[in-house]
Amino acid sequence: MTDSTTSELGLVRTEYFTIDRLVLESGEVIAPVMLAYETYGRLNAERSNAVLICHALTGDAHVAGINAATGKDGWWDSMVGPGKAFDTDELFVVCSNVLGGCQGSTGPLSPNPATGEPYGLDFPIITIGDMVSAQARLIEYLGIEKLLGVAGGSMGGMQALAWAAKFPHKINSIIAIATTAKHSPQQIAFNEVGRQAILSDPHFDNGRYYDGKAPERGLATARMVGHITYMSDESMAEKFGRRFRESTSKQKFAADFEVAGYLQYKGDNFVKRFDANSYLYITRAVDLFDLAGEKELAATLAPVCHASFLVLAFKSDWLYPANQSRELVRGCKLAGIDVTYCEINSTYGHDAFLLEVNEETHLIRHFLHKILRESAQGLNNDEHH
Amino acid sequence: MTDSTTSELGLVRTEYFTIDRLVLESGEVIAPVMLAYETYGRLNAERSNAVLICHALTGDAHVAGINAATGKDGWWDSMVGPGKAFDTDELFVVCSNVLGGCQGSTGPLSPNPATGEPYGLDFPIITIGDMVSAQARLIEYLGIEKLLGVAGGSMGGMQALAWAAKFPHKINSIIAIATTAKHSPQQIAFNEVGRQAILSDPHFDNGRYYDGKAPERGLATARMVGHITYMSDESMAEKFGRRFRESTSKQKFAADFEVAGYLQYKGDNFVKRFDANSYLYITRAVDLFDLAGEKELAATLAPVCHASFLVLAFKSDWLYPANQSRELVRGCKLAGIDVTYCEINSTYGHDAFLLEVNEETHLIRHFLHKILRESAQGLNNDEHH
Repeated sequence: MTDSTTSELGLVRTEYFTIDRLVLESGEVIAPVMLAYETYGRLNAERSNAVLICHALTGDAHVAGINAATGKDGWWDSMVGPGKAFDTDELFVVCSNVLGGCQGSTGPLSPNPATGEPYGLDFPIITIGDMVSAQARLIEYLGIEKLLGVAGGSMGGMQALAWAAKFPHKINSIIAIATTAKHSPQQIAFNEVGRQAILSDPHFDNGRYYDGKAPERGLATARMVGHITYMSDESMAEKFGRRFRESTSKQKFAADFEVAGYLQYKGDNFVKRFDANSYLYITRAVDLFDLAGEKELAATLAPVCHASFLVLAFKSDWLYPANQSRELVRGCKLAGIDVTYCEINSTYGHDAFLLEVNEETHLIRHFLHKILRESAQGLNNDEHH
Repeated sequence: MTDSTTSELGLVRTEYFTIDRLVLESGEVIAPVMLAYETYGRLNAERSNAVLICHALTGDAHVAGINAATGKDGWWDSMVGPGKAFDTDELFVVCSNVLGGCQGSTGPLSPNPATGEPYGLDFPIITIGDMVSAQARLIEYLGIEKLLGVAGGSMGGMQALAWAAKFPHKINSIIAIATTAKHSPQQIAFNEVGRQAILSDPHFDNGRYYDGKAPERGLATARMVGHITYMSDESMAEKFGRRFRESTSKQKFAADFEVAGYLQYKGDNFVKRFDANSYLYITRAVDLFDLAGEKELAATLAPVCHASFLVLAFKSDWLYPANQSRELVRGCKLAGIDVTYCEINSTYGHDAFLLEVNEETHLIRHFLHKILRESAQGLNNDEHH
């Protein structure tokens, strides 16, 4: 299905790592936790060239290359590979499916050891911090004491920030793209509508739908809302305008505007690859995200003042607007962090973090080269002591 | 229930006007059509002081005063009355529930004369132009040849613009607030999600739900999406922040953020007063709205170049953003229309058109005084010929 010339990384395999027991921020325990992950490039002898990439809401561990089992390209293949933004000739890149996910890692569709049935709503509420705790166990297992960087866009950026707050001494740098240090009420509201659509679906059955029909209409509606927020008014106008499409349905309120057809198509496709319960848990984790909580952001970031930050935002992104990134940058500056901020011109809205490859490539390559160089000097200096 | 001191207009009664037969823009016919309407103030001897106010998506004929039957305040009582923006000491104000509505005017819940049952989805698709055609018959019936003005916010503004295009010689002025000359794909997309939520509700039953349970969850979800778009990020942050509320439900994904509770409350209340089929038809009319279509906006507006326009937008309104108003103003200017444009500072988002009473009052009072004066001079001049 996939043109093998599209990825220089060739075939990659998803691997699995098991954590016996993970204590969550709530105090609840999940045992065991499996994480699906992939790696690209080679860990150097000093184990100093590892970068963790964290995926967004519905992403997975397969960030680049061609998956040996599915034949699919990675979701950020344009950015990860030899000579790319995350240059696998120099870096060892790791990506794992988040805790609570449905693409190989333990989540609500995994069997509950207590019953042998899928957890469903018996799965405990998880946080972005819990996702990061599980990743930290994977990183430790891979023999990496300190990451060169943690990078991600959107919810991936939140995980990167949570790494900074939870494990300040395990990172050299953070790349936070199109993200925020805390979810705003508007962002919560959009997720809430999506969750309500799932909960209202008659097939939801309190999360115990695995033997029957899934709450597909509800999940598709949730995804439609999501997709509106991922695009900009301008990109929708460019892509669809007010054009009508040939509707296959003669129903009176068939989605016959091109934009409506597109959203419906995206919604219908999404339900084939995503679990509705995972959608509930992961959006909830995102809504609960508030890096500093009652504290000042600068105070929360102070322990990570040795690290460098690259913060990227996109002008037409109204879901994670640039002012949230600037607030994060302000917190970094007040904490004495070496932070670079770029606001990229793009009409793609929030989707820009997946699409503005050229600009991101330059910014991220330069940033990581510098960190790599500094890290190597640091290692050399250590040798002299 | 209502404090009677809140309206100087006192009790008002909803009246009903019947049109034998209305030919729609599609060529289809509705016969008969009933319009619910209210009037305020007195029509002067010259019949020259009438202003039509058009309501937004889910509004009704009861714009001001206290409804004699329900005891409720009008939806724009702050703006209509003695000494107010629409000064009933000087003006004769008319407001009617739109064609397709569910608050007294003929719509999908009205009996279909062919069957005696509610129309449901047998009701024909209507347009903003059709709403205006019905209003024009009402205005004629009231003995008004030419309106001093047509005013409205949001969908009400679209009706005002449709008046300008369809009946250029029946109006002296247009007040178009927080609106657009054509619905954008993003605006269509939000409505589409709402419609999908209704169509997906198992109680929808292809629109024949009047004997049973209505598709309340679907309609509530649609309204939740709507309410997010009516507020701004900033107003939500001011009103709710990230605060939690005491949740009455112990459900795992209960809406326990204040913002979520508010949206749920708004959604649940809405279904008590609004018909899901009407929501489908009216949002569809709004989505179809494209004043100029294939033509240039200026060419469409050229026949109304004798009229004066007041165009108001709000800085934090991201649903009907100011650039759409500026495009409308550009069309007016190119058509040689005397147009005044104000972009009002407000954090209320789209809701601002209902809330920024002080600023709107000054702008609209001054504007209408001038039109009234010019109209009186025009009448005097006519007498001399």
